[in-house]
Amino acid sequence: MPETYYIVPKEKHDVLVTRAYLSRGYDAGETAAGARFCSSASYYGIRTHNAIKALHLDELFGSRVGRWKPGAKIEKLPSRFAAAEIWNAHFKLGQAVAYEAMDACMKLADQFGVGMVSVDNATHYLWGGGYVMDAALKGYLAYTNCTSAMSEVVPFGGKTPTMGTNPHSWGFPTQDAIGFPIVIDWATSTVAMGRVQQCKREGKPLAPGWAVDAQGNPTTDPDKAAALLPFGAHKGYGLGLIDELYAAFIGGGLPAIRGTTRGDADEKRCSTFYFQVIHPEALNGRNFAKGRTQAQNVKAVIADILGHGNEKCLLPGQPEARNGELSRKHGGLLFTKAEIEEFGLLAREAGEPAWNLAEFKTAQV
Amino acid sequence: MPETYYIVPKEKHDVLVTRAYLSRGYDAGETAAGARFCSSASYYGIRTHNAIKALHLDELFGSRVGRWKPGAKIEKLPSRFAAAEIWNAHFKLGQAVAYEAMDACMKLADQFGVGMVSVDNATHYLWGGGYVMDAALKGYLAYTNCTSAMSEVVPFGGKTPTMGTNPHSWGFPTQDAIGFPIVIDWATSTVAMGRVQQCKREGKPLAPGWAVDAQGNPTTDPDKAAALLPFGAHKGYGLGLIDELYAAFIGGGLPAIRGTTRGDADEKRCSTFYFQVIHPEALNGRNFAKGRTQAQNVKAVIADILGHGNEKCLLPGQPEARNGELSRKHGGLLFTKAEIEEFGLLAREAGEPAWNLAEFKTAQV
Repeated sequence: MPETYYIVPKEKHDVLVTRAYLSRGYDAGETAAGARFCSSASYYGIRTHNAIKALHLDELFGSRVGRWKPGAKIEKLPSRFAAAEIWNAHFKLGQAVAYEAMDACMKLADQFGVGMVSVDNATHYLWGGGYVMDAALKGYLAYTNCTSAMSEVVPFGGKTPTMGTNPHSWGFPTQDAIGFPIVIDWATSTVAMGRVQQCKREGKPLAPGWAVDAQGNPTTDPDKAAALLPFGAHKGYGLGLIDELYAAFIGGGLPAIRGTTRGDADEKRCSTFYFQVIHPEALNGRNFAKGRTQAQNVKAVIADILGHGNEKCLLPGQPEARNGELSRKHGGLLFTKAEIEEFGLLAREAGEPAWNLAEFKTAQV
Repeated sequence: MPETYYIVPKEKHDVLVTRAYLSRGYDAGETAAGARFCSSASYYGIRTHNAIKALHLDELFGSRVGRWKPGAKIEKLPSRFAAAEIWNAHFKLGQAVAYEAMDACMKLADQFGVGMVSVDNATHYLWGGGYVMDAALKGYLAYTNCTSAMSEVVPFGGKTPTMGTNPHSWGFPTQDAIGFPIVIDWATSTVAMGRVQQCKREGKPLAPGWAVDAQGNPTTDPDKAAALLPFGAHKGYGLGLIDELYAAFIGGGLPAIRGTTRGDADEKRCSTFYFQVIHPEALNGRNFAKGRTQAQNVKAVIADILGHGNEKCLLPGQPEARNGELSRKHGGLLFTKAEIEEFGLLAREAGEPAWNLAEFKTAQV
């Protein structure tokens, strides 16, 4: 069944998001990064991390509760390592920090082949896939991980959530080969807590492997679900642990109290970010079969994986690319009626004229 | 039920493995790396990748069939990137290449904070966890991936195996914090093909999520299983794809014909390796809670994850550490009766005196 979407011109969206961030005290650079990010998320159909979510997080964890610091300056620590930067973000808006860090990584990769930026005292960067996609579209292999704002996941075999849903995001510059960058981007829990809560509201059982009860026993009862499980048993547990270990080496505090007010006053409760970029030429062995260039080889390998009867398989990043194509075709960002109404509330907060459903063209998608 | 193991002194094991590699034409450096690797795998209880497996692979894919090249020299390509090396291994023994590459990465990380080595025309390095564990024990964060010798895994939603079981291995220098390095190391298929074959031999059903039949339908019938599934649905598929993409950028050929004689004569069928090392100081934000050092912070974070009722959870690398402790306690490498008999065959091949069960002390483990 096609659904009705309202087409919001990017400029109109960006003006509202910019004003909303400005009204909360963020500076010009932060608001620009905030608007750029939300616009990009909606363009590629990442409805879980659009402007509504971004500004809601800022209410729950951010400037509204004094944890995120509008106008904070990034402190770049002296480093004896030429290809590695270490930043103290001082709780600056995550999207602004993430774009700047990825830009720095690309410059380092241009020079050294690989570059990395580690960020302490970080906030939340929302959709890691957006940053690696951006770098991939500029021609680089990119990676990021971070610790989630809260710990909702139990270690494999455990009963108390002491790990975040800790995502990983990888981007590959495959647009010349297949028309879009491959973007591999997901949390290390099987599902997000929001999915469990949705089942609870709708009275539906959870799927096996999603959650445990307060004693650590697997449960499909949404009323008993107390914490999330890592995906893929010990393998997803290992992947979630990687983010906690990077954080531990960078400067993150005890995971069980992250994002809370629990624990000693002098503990840290921030997230950390890690970014890395590789220049594709720094991987190039210059010995491709049949005289292929590197780009031709990438194209041939992907075609082979999706050949031989696998033609219906999707590549990671393909749904985002399709959504981007829809946005391009319709000349704007696509939102549901409920989302347009939420934007109305944001407009009121920012002292802007409310959005009116009737002013937008619609599309059946 | 405790099982009987035969305790083989490391020196005796290494002499046999060295002579076996020498008898196949490998040079002194290669045989030393081969013996070092097998010894390490057995010390840490990696029974799937011990000397018997290593030398068997050399028969199936290696020097015995003319694909691996004893005595080959690694060609280090000129690179304009200071922190990235690109090597053509010319089918030199994988273990020798992997140790040397990890050493090179550590030197690069000392200087640049992060360093990487990409290897084209590679063979098989067996247990990636061994190389990252080695680097972790020397104080570094290490990572490696490679493409498997053969493609046995279907893309998510596909029916033909066009991807390897493509492993990832991460090592973290946590030995000062918890007594051993955390080593996260696994294939991106749910299980190895050997596990499916074992079920077939024993007439046991497969678990759901392991395999598909020739039409790509999930099956638990070992007689119908035609290919492996990635673990964790689209997430494990993405992880397996990462190895294929690194390979495509480095110099790997079409995955569906890797390790086979199929396809055009001028296609490539090699694996590729990718190695990366990070210096822990290059992550250090110098702002740990309660005045902790980086090492103290890592210890506190791990204790927090495994606290709060999670005390019985294992850390990745802990089983290997326990096996290492057993080997240390018993003063040698532990093998089963069947393994000792296999070593007897290797001894005969290398012109060494056969091993006699009666000459070894035993341990009940």
